[in-house]
Amino acid sequence: MTPRIDPIRPTDDAARELARQLLIQARHAALGVLDPDSGHPFVSRIALARDSNGAPVTLVSSLAHHARALEADPRCSLLVGEPEPKGDVLAWPRMTLICKARPVDRTAPDHARLRDRWLAAHPKAALYVDFGDFGFVRFAVSGALLNGGFGRAYRLSAADLGLDGA
Amino acid sequence: MTPRIDPIRPTDDAARELARQLLIQARHAALGVLDPDSGHPFVSRIALARDSNGAPVTLVSSLAHHARALEADPRCSLLVGEPEPKGDVLAWPRMTLICKARPVDRTAPDHARLRDRWLAAHPKAALYVDFGDFGFVRFAVSGALLNGGFGRAYRLSAADLGLDGA
Repeated sequence: MTPRIDPIRPTDDAARELARQLLIQARHAALGVLDPDSGHPFVSRIALARDSNGAPVTLVSSLAHHARALEADPRCSLLVGEPEPKGDVLAWPRMTLICKARPVDRTAPDHARLRDRWLAAHPKAALYVDFGDFGFVRFAVSGALLNGGFGRAYRLSAADLGLDGA
Repeated sequence: MTPRIDPIRPTDDAARELARQLLIQARHAALGVLDPDSGHPFVSRIALARDSNGAPVTLVSSLAHHARALEADPRCSLLVGEPEPKGDVLAWPRMTLICKARPVDRTAPDHARLRDRWLAAHPKAALYVDFGDFGFVRFAVSGALLNGGFGRAYRLSAADLGLDGA
């Protein structure tokens, strides 16, 4: 096998700051899970907000295919950071988060806080946040791959993102 | 286990048309793969175009993490369809494609056609399309899950999308 050049740069403060901004600004993400029947990769869109400690959270219906997948296997990945309409789409920064999904029980003490924070970020969700099939999921992040544009790839820890880790 | 309501609607021509439009209009996608070391889901952004038969294609560097993943296991998923800035992000249509990645050899007869089509869709890629580590990957689509907004989920075949199938 031909040796490959490692395209990963050493993580610096500018990379950490860019990564934190991408996570703070993300209103939605692409969620990658394993299909519960086949084990095949499956990507879908979720709405995103952050808990008070910065951890990404989402609100999902148990009827959604990705909810069933996360019940079977909590390992997942989030992609945040959207390209602007102009220029090469790969020149715009984005970040892959490596996560485990942790459902938040409706009776848990932090449910009310998550509900308040969710509605502040996504006011239109007031229409369905209290439906019986909807619930919050917190993502425990174990690491990330930041791509700040061509030739600007960085591997980050949860601590680099200001998060507690998985 | 509590029985679940199946939220999938019967596929009709309006769903097929929406799905085809989402695929035709997509300039980029979220790509879900299996991490080659851990088997963990991994989502990253790719630029997207279509071959003359409508099949989605991308141009990737072999240095990219997702390229190494697809070499190890070609099973993957694409998410296409971007939300507009206004309103609930989950009200905007999007589609999950279930795919296998098929790399296109640089010496293959269809390479020149793909290169032409790619540069028509992504003119800025002229800067790197001929770099030695870049190559085209065609996605063989076996099916899709279309989400046209709340309560409007459809399961589609490759034929529904006007594609040959995997």
